[in-house]
Amino acid sequence: MTTAENGKPRATTGRRRGRPGYDLDSLLQVAARLFYERGYDGTSMDELARKLGITKSAIYHHVSGKEELLRLAVDRALDGLFAVADETERLDGRAIDKLEHLVRGSVLVLSERLLYVTLLLRVRGNTKVERAALAKRREFDHIVARLVAQAEAEGDIRPDVDPAITARLLFGMVNSLIEWYKPRSNTNSAALADAVTKVAFDGIRQPRV
Amino acid sequence: MTTAENGKPRATTGRRRGRPGYDLDSLLQVAARLFYERGYDGTSMDELARKLGITKSAIYHHVSGKEELLRLAVDRALDGLFAVADETERLDGRAIDKLEHLVRGSVLVLSERLLYVTLLLRVRGNTKVERAALAKRREFDHIVARLVAQAEAEGDIRPDVDPAITARLLFGMVNSLIEWYKPRSNTNSAALADAVTKVAFDGIRQPRV
Repeated sequence: MTTAENGKPRATTGRRRGRPGYDLDSLLQVAARLFYERGYDGTSMDELARKLGITKSAIYHHVSGKEELLRLAVDRALDGLFAVADETERLDGRAIDKLEHLVRGSVLVLSERLLYVTLLLRVRGNTKVERAALAKRREFDHIVARLVAQAEAEGDIRPDVDPAITARLLFGMVNSLIEWYKPRSNTNSAALADAVTKVAFDGIRQPRV
Repeated sequence: MTTAENGKPRATTGRRRGRPGYDLDSLLQVAARLFYERGYDGTSMDELARKLGITKSAIYHHVSGKEELLRLAVDRALDGLFAVADETERLDGRAIDKLEHLVRGSVLVLSERLLYVTLLLRVRGNTKVERAALAKRREFDHIVARLVAQAEAEGDIRPDVDPAITARLLFGMVNSLIEWYKPRSNTNSAALADAVTKVAFDGIRQPRV
C-alpha cells in the first residue's frame, strides 16, 4: 500500500470530488475485511462504497465488481502459497526437507497475508471464483499429500499413520493459525514458523534422554 | 435419535395433523445442519419449519425459538468436551498424561458430534448464546494451556516453544478435524484419536535409529 505523507491512503481516484481515493491494494484490504466480517454473500457493493466513503463508480474504476474483488483477494493468498510450492518443487534432496520448506514458507505466507488466507480457507464454492479457489486449494493439498507419501517411502516419516491423515493433520495445524494468530503479538513470523516446524515434525513431547 | 420401524424419525408431535413429527434430537440435527449451511443469522424459523415439513408451532412445542436451538446444539459439543476435561482433571499423575487423555477424548467428541462441534467452533459472538459459548471455549482453552504449562514445568514438553503457542498448535491440529474428517470414511474414531495423539505428541518425523 502506498501512503501519502500524512499516512492516509494516497488518493488515486475520485480526486475531482475532493474525496480520499484508494489504490487497488487498500481497496482490496477494506473489501477483504468486509467479506470476512459479513461473509461474501452478505456484502454488497453499496455497503463497500459506503465503508470506503467513495462512489461505486470509483470502485468500478479499479475492478469489474464484487466477484473480481474476491478473486483478487484469494489470489493474494494463492499466489503466496504457490510461490512457496514452486520453490519447494525446485529443491533437490529428500522429500522431508522439501516438506519442511513448504511448511515454513506456508506459515510465513499465512502470517503475512492473514486476512487473504482466512478468506481463502473459508471459501464455500457458490460462485465461479470460489469454485476456482477451491480447485487451487485441492491442488495445493495434493502437493502436500504427495510429499508426505514420498517422505514416508523414503523412511523419513512415521509409517504407523496413514500418510493422507498425516498430511491433513500437518496442514490442519498450519492452517489453524488463522483462528488464533494475532499479527501484532510478540511472536514474529519467523519465530512462529520455527515453532510450527518443531511441533509438527518432532512433536510437543520432550524426548527422554 | 429414536426411529420407527420404517427408519423415519418417530413421530412425537404433530400426529393429529397426520404429519411426520420430530423428537428434540432429530429436530436439533436438522436445525444444526441448516445453521451450518446458511449461517445462524441467515436461517429463519420459517425456513426451518419448511425444511422439517412441520409448522412453526410444532417447533415451539420443543423449544422457545432459534436461540434455544443454537444453545442446545452448541451444548451438545460443550457437554462432550467438558465431560472429557472433568475426567482429565480427576486423573492422577503427570500433566502430559492428562493432556494426552484430553486430546484423545476431544478427538472422539469431535468425530462423534462433528456437526455440533463445527457450529461451536464457528460461533462469532453476536448473541447472548454465542457469547456464552465463546466464554466456555475460552475456559476449555485455559484448561489446555494450564496442562501444557504444567507438563513443560515437569520436563515432559519441549521447552523451546512458548507453551501458549504449543497449546494453540496442539488444539489447532485437533480442531482441524472439522475441516476434513468425513465420519463415513474408513478411519474410525479410535484410530483417528490414535493418529492425532501420535502426530501431536511425537511429530510426523520417523526418529533416526
